[in-house]
Amino acid sequence: MTAWRHCVGAGRLELALRRDYQESLALLQREIGFRHIRQHGLFSDGMGVHRPYGHGGERRVLHSFTYVDQVVDAYLALGVRPFVELGFMPPGLASGDQTVFWWRGNVTPPSDRAEWAALVRGTVAHLVDRYGLDEVRGWPIEVWNEPDLKDFWQHADQDAYHDLYEAAANAVKDVDASLQVGGPALSPGADDGWLPRFAEFVAARDVPIDFVSRHAYTSGAAQHVPFGVHQTLAPAATLLEQFAAPRRQLAGTALAGLPVHITEFNSSYRPDNPVHDTALHAAYLAPVVAGAGDLVDSFAYWTFCDVFEENGIPAALFHGGFGLLTHRQIRKPTFHLYAFLARMGDQVLARGEDHLVTRDGTGRVTVLAWAPVDHTGRGPAVAGHRVRLSVPIGQHAGTAYVARSSVSEEAGNAWAAWRELGSPRSPSARQLDALHEAAEPARRHHAAPVAQGRAELDLTLAAHEVTLVEVTAVHDETPPWWDDARLLGGPGRAAGSGSGGRDD
Amino acid sequence: MTAWRHCVGAGRLELALRRDYQESLALLQREIGFRHIRQHGLFSDGMGVHRPYGHGGERRVLHSFTYVDQVVDAYLALGVRPFVELGFMPPGLASGDQTVFWWRGNVTPPSDRAEWAALVRGTVAHLVDRYGLDEVRGWPIEVWNEPDLKDFWQHADQDAYHDLYEAAANAVKDVDASLQVGGPALSPGADDGWLPRFAEFVAARDVPIDFVSRHAYTSGAAQHVPFGVHQTLAPAATLLEQFAAPRRQLAGTALAGLPVHITEFNSSYRPDNPVHDTALHAAYLAPVVAGAGDLVDSFAYWTFCDVFEENGIPAALFHGGFGLLTHRQIRKPTFHLYAFLARMGDQVLARGEDHLVTRDGTGRVTVLAWAPVDHTGRGPAVAGHRVRLSVPIGQHAGTAYVARSSVSEEAGNAWAAWRELGSPRSPSARQLDALHEAAEPARRHHAAPVAQGRAELDLTLAAHEVTLVEVTAVHDETPPWWDDARLLGGPGRAAGSGSGGRDD
Amino acid sequence: MTAWRHCVGAGRLELALRRDYQESLALLQREIGFRHIRQHGLFSDGMGVHRPYGHGGERRVLHSFTYVDQVVDAYLALGVRPFVELGFMPPGLASGDQTVFWWRGNVTPPSDRAEWAALVRGTVAHLVDRYGLDEVRGWPIEVWNEPDLKDFWQHADQDAYHDLYEAAANAVKDVDASLQVGGPALSPGADDGWLPRFAEFVAARDVPIDFVSRHAYTSGAAQHVPFGVHQTLAPAATLLEQFAAPRRQLAGTALAGLPVHITEFNSSYRPDNPVHDTALHAAYLAPVVAGAGDLVDSFAYWTFCDVFEENGIPAALFHGGFGLLTHRQIRKPTFHLYAFLARMGDQVLARGEDHLVTRDGTGRVTVLAWAPVDHTGRGPAVAGHRVRLSVPIGQHAGTAYVARSSVSEEAGNAWAAWRELGSPRSPSARQLDALHEAAEPARRHHAAPVAQGRAELDLTLAAHEVTLVEVTAVHDETPPWWDDARLLGGPGRAAGSGSGGRDD
Amino acid sequence: MTAWRHCVGAGRLELALRRDYQESLALLQREIGFRHIRQHGLFSDGMGVHRPYGHGGERRVLHSFTYVDQVVDAYLALGVRPFVELGFMPPGLASGDQTVFWWRGNVTPPSDRAEWAALVRGTVAHLVDRYGLDEVRGWPIEVWNEPDLKDFWQHADQDAYHDLYEAAANAVKDVDASLQVGGPALSPGADDGWLPRFAEFVAARDVPIDFVSRHAYTSGAAQHVPFGVHQTLAPAATLLEQFAAPRRQLAGTALAGLPVHITEFNSSYRPDNPVHDTALHAAYLAPVVAGAGDLVDSFAYWTFCDVFEENGIPAALFHGGFGLLTHRQIRKPTFHLYAFLARMGDQVLARGEDHLVTRDGTGRVTVLAWAPVDHTGRGPAVAGHRVRLSVPIGQHAGTAYVARSSVSEEAGNAWAAWRELGSPRSPSARQLDALHEAAEPARRHHAAPVAQGRAELDLTLAAHEVTLVEVTAVHDETPPWWDDARLLGGPGRAAGSGSGGRDD
Repeated sequence: MTAWRHCVGAGRLELALRRDYQESLALLQREIGFRHIRQHGLFSDGMGVHRPYGHGGERRVLHSFTYVDQVVDAYLALGVRPFVELGFMPPGLASGDQTVFWWRGNVTPPSDRAEWAALVRGTVAHLVDRYGLDEVRGWPIEVWNEPDLKDFWQHADQDAYHDLYEAAANAVKDVDASLQVGGPALSPGADDGWLPRFAEFVAARDVPIDFVSRHAYTSGAAQHVPFGVHQTLAPAATLLEQFAAPRRQLAGTALAGLPVHITEFNSSYRPDNPVHDTALHAAYLAPVVAGAGDLVDSFAYWTFCDVFEENGIPAALFHGGFGLLTHRQIRKPTFHLYAFLARMGDQVLARGEDHLVTRDGTGRVTVLAWAPVDHTGRGPAVAGHRVRLSVPIGQHAGTAYVARSSVSEEAGNAWAAWRELGSPRSPSARQLDALHEAAEPARRHHAAPVAQGRAELDLTLAAHEVTLVEVTAVHDETPPWWDDARLLGGPGRAAGSGSGGRDD
Repeated sequence: MTAWRHCVGAGRLELALRRDYQESLALLQREIGFRHIRQHGLFSDGMGVHRPYGHGGERRVLHSFTYVDQVVDAYLALGVRPFVELGFMPPGLASGDQTVFWWRGNVTPPSDRAEWAALVRGTVAHLVDRYGLDEVRGWPIEVWNEPDLKDFWQHADQDAYHDLYEAAANAVKDVDASLQVGGPALSPGADDGWLPRFAEFVAARDVPIDFVSRHAYTSGAAQHVPFGVHQTLAPAATLLEQFAAPRRQLAGTALAGLPVHITEFNSSYRPDNPVHDTALHAAYLAPVVAGAGDLVDSFAYWTFCDVFEENGIPAALFHGGFGLLTHRQIRKPTFHLYAFLARMGDQVLARGEDHLVTRDGTGRVTVLAWAPVDHTGRGPAVAGHRVRLSVPIGQHAGTAYVARSSVSEEAGNAWAAWRELGSPRSPSARQLDALHEAAEPARRHHAAPVAQGRAELDLTLAAHEVTLVEVTAVHDETPPWWDDARLLGGPGRAAGSGSGGRDD
Repeated sequence: MTAWRHCVGAGRLELALRRDYQESLALLQREIGFRHIRQHGLFSDGMGVHRPYGHGGERRVLHSFTYVDQVVDAYLALGVRPFVELGFMPPGLASGDQTVFWWRGNVTPPSDRAEWAALVRGTVAHLVDRYGLDEVRGWPIEVWNEPDLKDFWQHADQDAYHDLYEAAANAVKDVDASLQVGGPALSPGADDGWLPRFAEFVAARDVPIDFVSRHAYTSGAAQHVPFGVHQTLAPAATLLEQFAAPRRQLAGTALAGLPVHITEFNSSYRPDNPVHDTALHAAYLAPVVAGAGDLVDSFAYWTFCDVFEENGIPAALFHGGFGLLTHRQIRKPTFHLYAFLARMGDQVLARGEDHLVTRDGTGRVTVLAWAPVDHTGRGPAVAGHRVRLSVPIGQHAGTAYVARSSVSEEAGNAWAAWRELGSPRSPSARQLDALHEAAEPARRHHAAPVAQGRAELDLTLAAHEVTLVEVTAVHDETPPWWDDARLLGGPGRAAGSGSGGRDD
Repeated sequence: MTAWRHCVGAGRLELALRRDYQESLALLQREIGFRHIRQHGLFSDGMGVHRPYGHGGERRVLHSFTYVDQVVDAYLALGVRPFVELGFMPPGLASGDQTVFWWRGNVTPPSDRAEWAALVRGTVAHLVDRYGLDEVRGWPIEVWNEPDLKDFWQHADQDAYHDLYEAAANAVKDVDASLQVGGPALSPGADDGWLPRFAEFVAARDVPIDFVSRHAYTSGAAQHVPFGVHQTLAPAATLLEQFAAPRRQLAGTALAGLPVHITEFNSSYRPDNPVHDTALHAAYLAPVVAGAGDLVDSFAYWTFCDVFEENGIPAALFHGGFGLLTHRQIRKPTFHLYAFLARMGDQVLARGEDHLVTRDGTGRVTVLAWAPVDHTGRGPAVAGHRVRLSVPIGQHAGTAYVARSSVSEEAGNAWAAWRELGSPRSPSARQLDALHEAAEPARRHHAAPVAQGRAELDLTLAAHEVTLVEVTAVHDETPPWWDDARLLGGPGRAAGSGSGGRDD
């Protein structure tokens, strides 16, 4: 029940220096609490790690961690740890000038394998020195990102990646054999032979590997409009198939038993697709997030906030960014899906196609339920879907307190409010307040009778609703003399009874 | 439109040293924003102001402001100022030992009029010295509390009060003639002759007076149960009659033109009547708070929080306290009534028996509406009351953003949630979270069409609902290429149109 | 090395509701970090725990924890835990009306032993229910305070105390046998037979007991002046003798092996003796706090802040209160003594009559040193006392960074500054700023050479100085091209060398 | 006395999104309080303002303020306002590809003058719309930066600048005639004819201009070492000459009466010269900052913090950056120079070559004094410089409270501590604590006698010391019974006197 919170994605490392990013991360950790955070750009120009210089007529390289330390210090203070991604190539070490993204990550192999190994070793050694081996041992270290795509790795050259991986993995283990290294962070489109070939390579050369990683997305081709795209989506279950693929592909290889991390997943792989901002998105992903824990060791939502610049600077507050949070910390419906999960217990009592029921150590029962989603968008959203459940509360309570939080097309849907406000690109302070208010889930509560130790729930879901129901046994301390009917000085249920006389 | 926020009441001054009190006050100021705060106990034992001692064989008196300064410093930092009440009698200056309240405020005349005058003068001079005359000139200074009741003033001796008043008023003016002094802070039960006699006295002896004050409550005799009472209530309009009384009673006297302050008002005068905690209470007071501004210069809700000990230490979280906030800052429905008012504009557009409509400088229109209340509690609460209004938005907007916040029996009613939780006297951390959640108003929003510069509102009110509706003109920035129908990659409203081609 | 931080004393429990108290506690925990906090007044009127009421014609008792929970919730949030003191007697359970202190703690035996036992059982059961047995098991529970003094226990009746103790101890163990209960919290003046008689009693009747407690003070008779006293002091070593007394007195009894807690200690037992505010006081107590860990399991400084009202409300900011902190968090020199200790390591390298040397897990060496004190005050304070030490730094460092913090008559002495400011009873905001500045220790630093793995310290102490010296090995990263002489563009140490040419 | 705080410089606007930057700014505003902040990069790529796109087959431009609003919202919340600099050229509007700095600011003229004007107009109109005309009217708007240098303006083409200025100035005034626009932000090396030619141009074509601006630096050619430079400095008085130049050069022109703003000044113009980090630097600039107010309307220290990347990412904590603060808010000596000035009064009582004396409205007198500096660095720093002053305190005080804060080679010099720590590039948490401690000024206080209403000060200054002395009249509240000699219970000054008897 915790693979969903093992890791979350984020914009490039340099952005972690931003206040908006850190405030979003603080909110995320307070209301959800991820264990690791993964992002590109550790070695890119903006972090200033690889610093060649001349002295005494020779070329030398300084490894500088001014910004890396600022970021990691902040992460640890917020209770989250790096899922390290080694990449992209520092300009001073690159063999070519091909870049990816608006921010120009260099995607060419190193010009000098030894200097690359020294860079990895120096970086990991610095982290161990600053944060301690016990700490860093818990941080997975992944080599590069989607080397099977020519946009992310020059010519998508698998042999060159194997070379890069081998140098990096050995450099990590040079620092300490207990550190965890892995890859190859494949894209969803990688051909089925990629991973077996990688397995063969590491086995043949006895290269260290502690985990295997790939990515998963479900969107089709991008249909462009200014500052955005639209895309078709495959059914959400396709994500589960993608999650399951590495174990299937590695069966029978030397890597068969390794942990598998989905180091990125989402519906669309584009940071400018408005579907990310919608209530539909939360309902679409609910069965995935609630159900994928058996398939992999982690699956990292890409990304936690909209501080993200792969396509340049966002031109409006809502712009279809990946984030669970917009700039300035407005919670999108998918944020609440995660926040709801974070309030659930460890023990799974039931699972279904539209619900998950858990219990925690105190006996509190929680239900997550979601409305069905038509991934084609052809019909109207289904309203009125019902989920009926009987949940165990214990023999001692006469009633249960039932609290329900919901997001849907109507509730907890800041994007809908933003559109009603006229889609303001740069909302005023008052509009931001309205959006923060609109982003709050709807909340209801009632007391439910408990019979034979169980309470009955009959939930009707609004269009694209995701709902969390918390059910707690009530220990009744209402005093025996309490009588509603006397609230306004009336005679009470048993008029004339002696429990309270008049005075004054 | 601001008499309602001019002043609010509070538990005795010593309690202002408490963290819970100050956190409640901070929340109050952030979400409502009162100008002044009034409370008993400035000269009572727990504040340590009047300190007789012996030196060189003589009795001397030190005036000490250790705690007074801590409180006033905190008030000013929170943006609220004292409405000073001079009382009760310091033990070392009292002529008898009659006390009021669990905390034993001494209610006897001073044993030495000169020492009383010196105490008042010394205190006011200290405040002027520490905070500046410009600041303190804005703080009304009221002499004593409800001297017409024998519980609050020995024998309810009016002549003795006149004497006390005269000494105090002159002492205040000794410090600076521009300081404001007033009284007599009469109880609702004061006979009609009290105020004219007081007017006659001050006129006859040319005693300084800058304002007149009295209190207002609507509850009947207390019917006791353990740790609480029940009382009948008079109709809310009775409060308006009480507010109007001083001007009526003073017509034709020398005090006829003075400002009138209702320095305490509420339904019940008891800090242990559960009616204070209810949704009914907010709806009951809504017409009073929305409408009394014409009758008086201020009317101070008694009190802003449940940190209050006149009847001893509260034995449960909800205990019928006066507070707008419980201990630990749970907002009661009546808190929201005030918070709603605080979001309204300065310009009154319309008033009715169930609504108030205002506009602010930006053109934003706000509506406060409330459901009818049966003050006898005999019938069931009315649900479904409708309020229909047409509000002016301006000629330029095609739509308006309408945001509605509500408290009622169902929504924003933490007391109801507390009862569903089994009335826990000392709620656990998790229960406190549930209560804070339950205390949030329900919120909805939609876009309304604007025709001829007006938007139509048709509000249906739940039982005991008080609702705030904010209506703002929309400036539409939605780009021309936006098409909902393309969200999931569909062909769009005008399939085949050229605005976006496919690519990868 | 941690008995000194095991517990600290505080004003009565009700005062823990104050903001000033909680802010002081937060500062204390941030800069020192005590494990437990002990104070009087759990059952006194102001906490509202014992609440008799009538219902159905019968007397009943409710146990109410409204305030207790507020306080303990705050303590745990600040990282400190109660050292529970059971007392004084609730007015509704007292057999007489003798009280102690301005705030009137009732010191008479219970009128009903069963109701007393029920009160203890109910309170402890509530704490276990709210905070968990694992947590509460770590909270020592002490029965009453100084029953050997007739001011604190009617007639100082030892038999009556035995009765009270037995009922309480059994009630605690009724809740859970693993809870810790103890006593008898004797005054320093208790006759030598008291403890053995107590031991005999508990052994004879097999009464539960998990620890033994007593108090220690060194001051003589009070010489009164208005709002204060002066007293002679015994030598500081007298405190060590008092600490050692219980083990001596219990040798050979059934209680011989029990933990011993000094649940209060200080120089003067008066909250209005200016000696508490002085630099002398820190130097006087330094050898006690640095050296007493071997004698007892804990010794609790009485008290952590000046929010304290046993003699009434303090009439001036500095008034000789027990506090390590004044109202509004001004640090007294004795605060710094504790803060210095809190920065020391776990491993004791050396002890002497004027110093203590420790090392922590990182190799950092710390020295606490103090100037001698003439407890009679007859001569001038000794300035210029020298302490010379050689401390081990390790073989790898060429230099050590030496940072020294000091409080003395001249430095970190807010009381001296307050007197220079004219002893303002209620300092202005600007004066408070000046006092906070004056309360900062003086700080110096330098780089010391390391030879044979050791650095030499030669410390000259000012009058009444207490100083902390921290010595850390330096890992030198200064680049080879650094040359001070070139800072202002000069030619450098090796003029003409080629490392940097001119340009522009 | 306030030109020094009118404006401060900062790294490019995009960096204002960083948490470290904003925390530094918050500290700056709390302890100093500048009115305006100026920086490059408003229109550069990283701010995403100028956004060309295609729609319906046409090129269009969107102006986007996502990031601009985040920055300005933060500024206003921190109490500081923009000093707007219009530049550099957005890539989509540039006529060439010449860039300046590591972060590649484009310095070529616009490819389309109308689009440039539209960009300026759109930006200013947006600011007025969001923040209000009353607010924005107070923000000076400066056109470009150092157009007389070919690094900052292609070919340093003055005619092209005139064209750029004219378009921008008219665009600003199109929004509102009351907005302030100016230029030309000349470098210190601009030839003497530049400004008169500019004056002639604006006069001839009646181009709007509200102020004139230029920069000032005193360093010589850069002598490079890895990651840094060394430079000679001219005497500090050279800065005053540079400040005075515009008024001299404009005498007799149409611009003669305009406000003059020095929109950048410092010793070295390099962000990697260690002199910025030193105590010498504060003493070097003290006479400039204390004395330049008569020469110009403002002079902006370049820059307030080390979050600055013109030369790339700093490779060590101390790296010779311009900042008053390092990364992570360590205060450099020059920060304290400004913080000292911020505590001074409005009324200048005396000025001298080594001091400035002021008084504020409460009568508090402050003295700023500084040690002499040898700008060649050839001799050792002068220690022991004395400043003797007699300051007026008023007739009523018998004593004055004198508080002195100092930075020097020894005190408040974090850079010196950093070097003693071995120049750690990326200091550990503990080292950062040590540096923050070392950055605190040394503080002393004493009571000085007042005779004939004056107190005498005799200040001895350490090497490169800058010191602030605050002198306040004392109102003595020490009680008549106070007697130091009785502190430890001794007989007191007048042994046997009757003021306090013994008891107990």
